[in-house]
Amino acid sequence: MEHLPIRRAFTLIEPGPAVLVTTNDGSKNNVMTITWTMVLDFTPTFAITTGPWNHSYAALRESKECVVAIPTVDMIDTVVGVGSCSGSDTDKFAKFHLAAVTARHVRAPLIRQCLANIECRVVEIVERYGIVVLRGVEAWFDGSRKEKRTIHAVGDGTFVVDGRRIDRKEMMRSKLPDGL
Amino acid sequence: MEHLPIRRAFTLIEPGPAVLVTTNDGSKNNVMTITWTMVLDFTPTFAITTGPWNHSYAALRESKECVVAIPTVDMIDTVVGVGSCSGSDTDKFAKFHLAAVTARHVRAPLIRQCLANIECRVVEIVERYGIVVLRGVEAWFDGSRKEKRTIHAVGDGTFVVDGRRIDRKEMMRSKLPDGL
Repeated sequence: MEHLPIRRAFTLIEPGPAVLVTTNDGSKNNVMTITWTMVLDFTPTFAITTGPWNHSYAALRESKECVVAIPTVDMIDTVVGVGSCSGSDTDKFAKFHLAAVTARHVRAPLIRQCLANIECRVVEIVERYGIVVLRGVEAWFDGSRKEKRTIHAVGDGTFVVDGRRIDRKEMMRSKLPDGL
Repeated sequence: MEHLPIRRAFTLIEPGPAVLVTTNDGSKNNVMTITWTMVLDFTPTFAITTGPWNHSYAALRESKECVVAIPTVDMIDTVVGVGSCSGSDTDKFAKFHLAAVTARHVRAPLIRQCLANIECRVVEIVERYGIVVLRGVEAWFDGSRKEKRTIHAVGDGTFVVDGRRIDRKEMMRSKLPDGL
Protein backbone atom coordinates (compact mmCIF):
# COMPACT_ATOMS: atom_id res chain seq x y z
CA MET A 1 0.00 0.00 0.00
CA GLU A 2 1.23 3.46 -0.89
CA HIS A 3 0.93 6.55 1.17
CA LEU A 4 -2.03 8.74 0.20
CA PRO A 5 -1.78 12.48 1.07
CA ILE A 6 -4.10 12.97 4.04
CA ARG A 7 -5.77 15.97 2.38
CA ARG A 8 -7.13 13.55 -0.25
CA ALA A 9 -8.53 11.03 2.26
CA PHE A 10 -11.99 12.65 2.35
CA THR A 11 -12.44 11.64 -1.31
CA LEU A 12 -12.54 8.01 -0.16
CA ILE A 13 -15.52 8.70 2.12
CA GLU A 14 -17.47 11.39 0.25
CA PRO A 15 -18.92 9.06 -2.44
CA GLY A 16 -20.60 7.03 0.32
CA PRO A 17 -19.13 3.52 0.07
CA ALA A 18 -19.80 0.80 2.63
CA VAL A 19 -16.65 0.63 4.79
CA LEU A 20 -15.00 -1.75 7.22
CA VAL A 21 -13.94 -0.20 10.54
CA THR A 22 -11.27 -1.96 12.57
CA THR A 23 -10.58 -1.54 16.28
CA ASN A 24 -8.26 -3.03 18.86
CA ASP A 25 -9.42 -3.24 22.48
CA GLY A 26 -5.90 -3.68 23.86
CA SER A 27 -5.82 -7.44 23.33
CA LYS A 28 -7.57 -8.28 20.10
CA ASN A 29 -8.62 -6.90 16.74
CA ASN A 30 -12.20 -6.54 15.60
CA VAL A 31 -13.90 -5.24 12.49
CA MET A 32 -17.41 -4.00 11.71
CA THR A 33 -19.25 -3.00 8.55
CA ILE A 34 -20.47 0.59 8.55
CA THR A 35 -22.72 2.05 5.87
CA TRP A 36 -23.57 5.29 7.71
CA THR A 37 -20.66 7.68 7.13
CA MET A 38 -20.27 11.39 6.32
CA VAL A 39 -17.46 13.85 5.59
CA LEU A 40 -17.35 16.82 7.99
CA ASP A 41 -14.40 18.75 6.55
CA PHE A 42 -11.31 18.46 4.37
CA THR A 43 -8.70 18.09 7.14
CA PRO A 44 -10.22 15.35 7.07
CA THR A 45 -12.78 15.04 9.82
CA PHE A 46 -15.59 12.63 9.20
CA ALA A 47 -18.33 10.82 11.07
CA ILE A 48 -19.64 7.30 11.35
CA THR A 49 -22.85 6.33 13.10
CA THR A 50 -22.98 3.27 15.36
CA GLY A 51 -24.00 2.47 18.92
CA PRO A 52 -23.72 0.20 21.94
CA TRP A 53 -25.42 -2.70 20.09
CA ASN A 54 -22.17 -2.95 18.15
CA HIS A 55 -19.38 -4.90 19.89
CA SER A 56 -16.76 -2.52 18.41
CA TYR A 57 -18.37 0.48 20.11
CA ALA A 58 -16.68 -0.19 23.47
CA ALA A 59 -13.25 -0.44 21.81
CA LEU A 60 -13.91 2.76 19.85
CA ARG A 61 -14.85 4.62 23.03
CA GLU A 62 -11.99 3.31 25.10
CA SER A 63 -9.12 3.24 22.62
CA LYS A 64 -10.31 6.39 20.79
CA GLU A 65 -8.80 4.95 17.62
CA CYS A 66 -9.85 3.01 14.56
CA VAL A 67 -9.02 2.35 10.93
CA VAL A 68 -11.59 3.01 8.21
CA ALA A 69 -10.90 0.57 5.37
CA ILE A 70 -12.49 0.81 1.92
CA PRO A 71 -13.47 -2.54 0.39
CA THR A 72 -14.31 -3.10 -3.28
CA VAL A 73 -17.04 -5.04 -5.05
CA ASP A 74 -15.08 -8.32 -5.08
CA MET A 75 -15.28 -8.18 -1.26
CA ILE A 76 -19.07 -7.87 -1.07
CA ASP A 77 -19.59 -11.14 0.77
CA THR A 78 -16.95 -10.13 3.30
CA VAL A 79 -18.73 -6.80 3.81
CA VAL A 80 -22.09 -8.54 4.33
CA GLY A 81 -20.56 -11.34 6.41
CA VAL A 82 -18.65 -8.99 8.73
CA GLY A 83 -21.90 -7.06 9.23
CA SER A 84 -23.84 -10.22 10.05
CA CYS A 85 -21.84 -11.58 13.00
CA SER A 86 -20.40 -10.14 16.20
CA GLY A 87 -16.89 -9.73 17.52
CA SER A 88 -18.27 -10.81 20.92
CA ASP A 89 -18.12 -14.46 19.81
CA THR A 90 -16.24 -14.42 16.49
CA ASP A 91 -12.69 -13.63 15.41
CA LYS A 92 -13.77 -11.91 12.24
CA PHE A 93 -10.23 -11.43 10.90
CA ALA A 94 -9.80 -15.23 11.01
CA LYS A 95 -13.29 -16.08 9.80
CA PHE A 96 -13.08 -13.81 6.74
CA HIS A 97 -9.34 -14.34 6.06
CA LEU A 98 -8.59 -10.66 6.46
CA ALA A 99 -4.88 -9.80 6.72
CA ALA A 100 -4.23 -7.37 9.59
CA VAL A 101 -1.36 -4.99 8.82
CA THR A 102 0.25 -2.90 11.54
CA ALA A 103 -0.75 0.76 11.26
CA ARG A 104 1.64 3.64 11.88
CA HIS A 105 -0.29 5.75 14.41
CA VAL A 106 -3.02 3.55 15.88
CA ARG A 107 -3.26 0.08 17.37
CA ALA A 108 -6.26 -0.83 15.17
CA PRO A 109 -4.99 -2.71 12.09
CA LEU A 110 -5.11 -1.86 8.42
CA ILE A 111 -6.77 -4.48 6.19
CA ARG A 112 -4.40 -5.57 3.44
CA GLN A 113 -7.16 -6.68 1.05
CA CYS A 114 -8.86 -3.28 1.00
CA LEU A 115 -8.40 -0.60 -1.66
CA ALA A 116 -7.57 2.02 0.98
CA ASN A 117 -7.16 2.45 4.72
CA ILE A 118 -7.43 5.59 6.85
CA GLU A 119 -5.89 5.64 10.34
CA CYS A 120 -8.20 7.65 12.59
CA ARG A 121 -8.48 9.09 16.05
CA VAL A 122 -11.86 9.54 17.74
CA VAL A 123 -12.39 13.28 18.31
CA GLU A 124 -15.73 12.96 20.06
CA ILE A 125 -18.81 10.78 20.27
CA VAL A 126 -22.14 12.62 20.04
CA GLU A 127 -23.85 9.99 22.18
CA ARG A 128 -27.49 10.87 21.60
CA TYR A 129 -27.18 10.03 17.92
CA GLY A 130 -24.31 7.55 18.03
CA ILE A 131 -22.24 9.89 15.85
CA VAL A 132 -18.53 9.09 16.17
CA VAL A 133 -16.43 12.03 14.94
CA LEU A 134 -13.10 10.89 13.49
CA ARG A 135 -9.95 12.71 12.46
CA GLY A 136 -7.94 10.98 9.73
CA VAL A 137 -4.22 11.00 10.57
CA GLU A 138 -2.68 8.86 7.83
CA ALA A 139 -4.04 7.23 4.69
CA TRP A 140 -2.94 4.34 2.49
CA PHE A 141 -4.00 3.32 -1.00
CA ASP A 142 -3.34 0.16 -3.00
CA GLY A 143 -2.78 1.51 -6.49
CA SER A 144 -1.72 -1.93 -7.76
CA ARG A 145 -5.23 -3.31 -7.32
CA LYS A 146 -7.17 -3.75 -10.54
CA GLU A 147 -10.62 -3.72 -8.94
CA LYS A 148 -11.30 -0.23 -7.65
CA ARG A 149 -15.12 -0.16 -7.73
CA THR A 150 -16.65 0.35 -4.30
CA ILE A 151 -20.15 -0.64 -3.20
CA HIS A 152 -22.95 1.48 -1.77
CA ALA A 153 -25.43 -0.12 0.63
CA VAL A 154 -29.04 0.77 -0.11
CA GLY A 155 -30.23 -0.49 3.27
CA ASP A 156 -32.74 -3.04 1.96
CA GLY A 157 -30.21 -5.83 1.42
CA THR A 158 -29.09 -4.59 -1.99
CA PHE A 159 -25.88 -2.78 -2.95
CA VAL A 160 -25.12 -0.47 -5.86
CA VAL A 161 -21.72 -0.88 -7.52
CA ASP A 162 -19.75 2.12 -8.82
CA GLY A 163 -20.48 2.74 -12.50
CA ARG A 164 -18.86 5.21 -14.85
CA ARG A 165 -17.17 8.42 -13.67
CA ILE A 166 -18.13 11.90 -14.88
CA ASP A 167 -15.62 14.76 -14.78
CA ARG A 168 -16.81 18.26 -13.82
CA LYS A 169 -13.47 19.55 -12.48
CA GLU A 170 -13.46 22.62 -14.71
CA MET A 171 -16.95 23.73 -13.64
CA MET A 172 -16.05 23.18 -9.98
CA ARG A 173 -12.48 24.51 -9.95
CA SER A 174 -13.24 27.47 -7.66
CA LYS A 175 -14.96 25.21 -5.10
CA LEU A 176 -12.31 22.51 -4.77
CA PRO A 177 -9.80 22.53 -1.92
CA ASP A 178 -6.17 23.17 -2.87
CA GLY A 179 -4.13 20.27 -4.14
CA LEU A 180 -6.96 18.15 -5.56
CA MET B 1 -44.92 11.77 -7.59
CA GLU B 2 -46.20 8.89 -5.53
CA HIS B 3 -46.16 8.58 -1.79
CA LEU B 4 -43.21 6.54 -0.47
CA PRO B 5 -43.65 4.91 2.96
CA ILE B 6 -41.56 7.00 5.34
CA ARG B 7 -39.89 3.87 6.79
CA ARG B 8 -38.25 3.38 3.35
CA ALA B 9 -36.94 6.94 3.03
CA PHE B 10 -33.55 6.12 4.60
CA THR B 11 -32.83 3.89 1.57
CA LEU B 12 -32.70 7.06 -0.56
CA ILE B 13 -29.89 8.52 1.60
CA GLU B 14 -27.91 5.43 2.69
CA PRO B 15 -26.21 4.83 -0.70
CA GLY B 16 -24.66 8.31 -0.46
CA PRO B 17 -25.99 10.24 -3.47
CA ALA B 18 -25.40 13.95 -3.97
CA VAL B 19 -28.68 15.65 -2.98
CA LEU B 20 -30.41 18.98 -3.45
CA VAL B 21 -31.75 20.57 -0.25
CA THR B 22 -34.49 23.17 -0.56
CA THR B 23 -35.45 25.78 2.02
CA ASN B 24 -37.90 28.68 2.29
CA ASP B 25 -36.98 31.67 4.42
CA GLY B 26 -40.56 32.92 4.71
CA SER B 27 -40.51 34.82 1.43
CA LYS B 28 -38.49 32.88 -1.11
CA ASN B 29 -37.26 29.43 -2.04
CA ASN B 30 -33.63 28.43 -2.21
CA VAL B 31 -31.75 25.24 -2.99
CA MET B 32 -28.23 23.97 -2.26
CA THR B 33 -26.21 20.94 -3.31
CA ILE B 34 -25.13 18.74 -0.41
CA THR B 35 -22.76 15.80 -0.77
CA TRP B 36 -22.12 15.25 2.95
CA THR B 37 -25.08 13.22 4.26
CA MET B 38 -25.55 10.26 6.64
CA VAL B 39 -28.37 8.08 7.92
CA LEU B 40 -28.74 8.11 11.73
CA ASP B 41 -31.64 5.67 12.14
CA PHE B 42 -34.56 4.05 10.34
CA THR B 43 -37.34 6.36 11.57
CA PRO B 44 -35.75 8.07 9.51
CA THR B 45 -33.37 10.48 11.15
CA PHE B 46 -30.43 11.61 9.08
CA ALA B 47 -27.77 14.27 9.00
CA ILE B 48 -26.36 16.72 6.51
CA THR B 49 -23.26 18.81 7.06
CA THR B 50 -23.20 22.49 6.08
CA GLY B 51 -22.39 25.81 7.72
CA PRO B 52 -22.80 29.58 7.81
CA TRP B 53 -20.88 29.99 4.49
CA ASN B 54 -23.98 28.52 2.87
CA HIS B 55 -26.80 31.00 2.23
CA SER B 56 -29.39 28.27 3.00
CA TYR B 57 -28.00 27.80 6.51
CA ALA B 58 -29.92 30.78 7.95
CA ALA B 59 -33.20 29.52 6.48
CA LEU B 60 -32.52 26.03 7.83
CA ARG B 61 -31.87 27.39 11.32
CA GLU B 62 -34.82 29.73 11.37
CA SER B 63 -37.51 27.73 9.58
CA LYS B 64 -36.30 24.39 11.00
CA GLU B 65 -37.53 22.75 7.81
CA CYS B 66 -36.22 21.60 4.46
CA VAL B 67 -36.76 19.14 1.64
CA VAL B 68 -34.04 16.69 0.65
CA ALA B 69 -34.46 15.96 -3.06
CA ILE B 70 -32.65 13.17 -4.91
CA PRO B 71 -31.44 14.09 -8.41
CA THR B 72 -30.33 11.59 -11.05
CA VAL B 73 -27.43 11.49 -13.50
CA ASP B 74 -29.28 13.44 -16.21
CA MET B 75 -29.34 16.35 -13.72
CA ILE B 76 -25.58 16.42 -13.09
CA ASP B 77 -25.08 19.92 -14.50
CA THR B 78 -27.92 21.19 -12.31
CA VAL B 79 -26.29 19.57 -9.27
CA VAL B 80 -22.92 21.17 -10.08
CA GLY B 81 -24.48 24.50 -11.08
CA VAL B 82 -26.62 24.78 -7.93
CA GLY B 83 -23.50 24.08 -5.89
CA SER B 84 -21.50 26.75 -7.73
CA CYS B 85 -23.67 29.84 -7.10
CA SER B 86 -25.36 31.41 -4.09
CA GLY B 87 -28.97 32.08 -3.19
CA SER B 88 -27.79 35.44 -1.84
CA ASP B 89 -27.76 36.85 -5.38
CA THR B 90 -29.39 34.16 -7.54
CA ASP B 91 -32.89 32.71 -7.84
CA LYS B 92 -31.64 29.17 -8.38
CA PHE B 93 -35.11 27.72 -9.08
CA ALA B 94 -35.42 30.15 -12.02
CA LYS B 95 -31.82 29.85 -13.19
CA PHE B 96 -31.89 26.04 -13.33
CA HIS B 97 -35.55 25.73 -14.41
CA LEU B 98 -36.46 23.72 -11.33
CA ALA B 99 -40.19 23.26 -10.76
CA ALA B 100 -41.11 23.97 -7.13
CA VAL B 101 -44.00 21.80 -5.94
CA THR B 102 -45.87 22.57 -2.72
CA ALA B 103 -44.97 20.12 0.02
CA ARG B 104 -47.49 18.74 2.50
CA HIS B 105 -45.82 19.47 5.85
CA VAL B 106 -43.13 22.07 5.22
CA ARG B 107 -42.87 25.40 3.44
CA ALA B 108 -39.71 24.35 1.58
CA PRO B 109 -40.69 23.07 -1.88
CA LEU B 110 -40.35 19.67 -3.48
CA ILE B 111 -38.46 19.61 -6.80
CA ARG B 112 -40.60 18.05 -9.52
CA GLN B 113 -37.62 16.97 -11.68
CA CYS B 114 -36.05 14.86 -8.92
CA LEU B 115 -36.42 11.11 -8.49
CA ALA B 116 -37.51 11.50 -4.88
CA ASN B 117 -38.19 14.17 -2.26
CA ILE B 118 -38.18 13.89 1.53
CA GLU B 119 -39.94 16.54 3.62
CA CYS B 120 -37.86 17.11 6.76
CA ARG B 121 -37.87 18.94 10.07
CA VAL B 122 -34.64 20.09 11.68
CA VAL B 123 -34.28 18.22 14.99
CA GLU B 124 -31.06 19.90 16.07
CA ILE B 125 -27.93 21.52 14.71
CA VAL B 126 -24.66 20.31 16.23
CA GLU B 127 -23.01 23.68 15.64
CA ARG B 128 -19.37 22.80 16.21
CA TYR B 129 -19.39 20.42 13.25
CA GLY B 130 -22.19 21.97 11.16
CA ILE B 131 -24.16 18.73 11.50
CA VAL B 132 -27.86 19.34 10.82
CA VAL B 133 -29.97 16.49 12.21
CA LEU B 134 -33.16 15.97 10.18
CA ARG B 135 -36.30 13.92 10.75
CA GLY B 136 -38.06 12.79 7.57
CA VAL B 137 -41.82 13.31 7.86
CA GLU B 138 -43.09 12.45 4.37
CA ALA B 139 -41.46 11.06 1.25
CA TRP B 140 -42.31 11.10 -2.45
CA PHE B 141 -41.00 9.05 -5.35
CA ASP B 142 -41.40 9.43 -9.10
CA GLY B 143 -41.76 5.83 -10.24
CA SER B 144 -42.64 6.97 -13.78
CA ARG B 145 -39.12 8.27 -14.36
CA LYS B 146 -36.93 6.08 -16.55
CA GLU B 147 -33.60 7.43 -15.31
CA LYS B 148 -33.14 6.28 -11.73
CA ARG B 149 -29.32 6.28 -11.46
CA THR B 150 -28.05 8.71 -8.83
CA ILE B 151 -24.60 10.30 -8.68
CA HIS B 152 -21.97 10.21 -5.95
CA ALA B 153 -19.61 13.16 -5.53
CA VAL B 154 -15.99 12.14 -5.06
CA GLY B 155 -15.00 15.61 -3.86
CA ASP B 156 -12.33 16.27 -6.51
CA GLY B 157 -14.73 17.48 -9.19
CA THR B 158 -15.65 14.00 -10.41
CA PHE B 159 -18.83 12.02 -9.81
CA VAL B 160 -19.49 8.27 -9.85
CA VAL B 161 -22.74 7.13 -11.43
CA ASP B 162 -24.71 4.18 -10.03
CA GLY B 163 -23.76 0.94 -11.76
CA ARG B 164 -25.31 -2.51 -11.38
CA ARG B 165 -27.17 -3.63 -8.27
CA ILE B 166 -26.23 -6.71 -6.23
CA ASP B 167 -28.84 -8.48 -4.11
CA ARG B 168 -27.84 -9.89 -0.69
CA LYS B 169 -31.30 -9.73 0.91
CA GLU B 170 -31.26 -13.40 1.92
CA MET B 171 -27.91 -13.13 3.72
CA MET B 172 -29.04 -9.95 5.48
CA ARG B 173 -32.65 -10.86 6.28
CA SER B 174 -32.17 -10.89 10.07
CA LYS B 175 -30.54 -7.44 10.03
CA LEU B 176 -33.12 -5.57 7.92
CA PRO B 177 -35.81 -3.43 9.49
CA ASP B 178 -39.40 -4.69 9.17
CA GLY B 179 -41.23 -3.95 5.97
CA LEU B 180 -38.26 -3.68 3.65
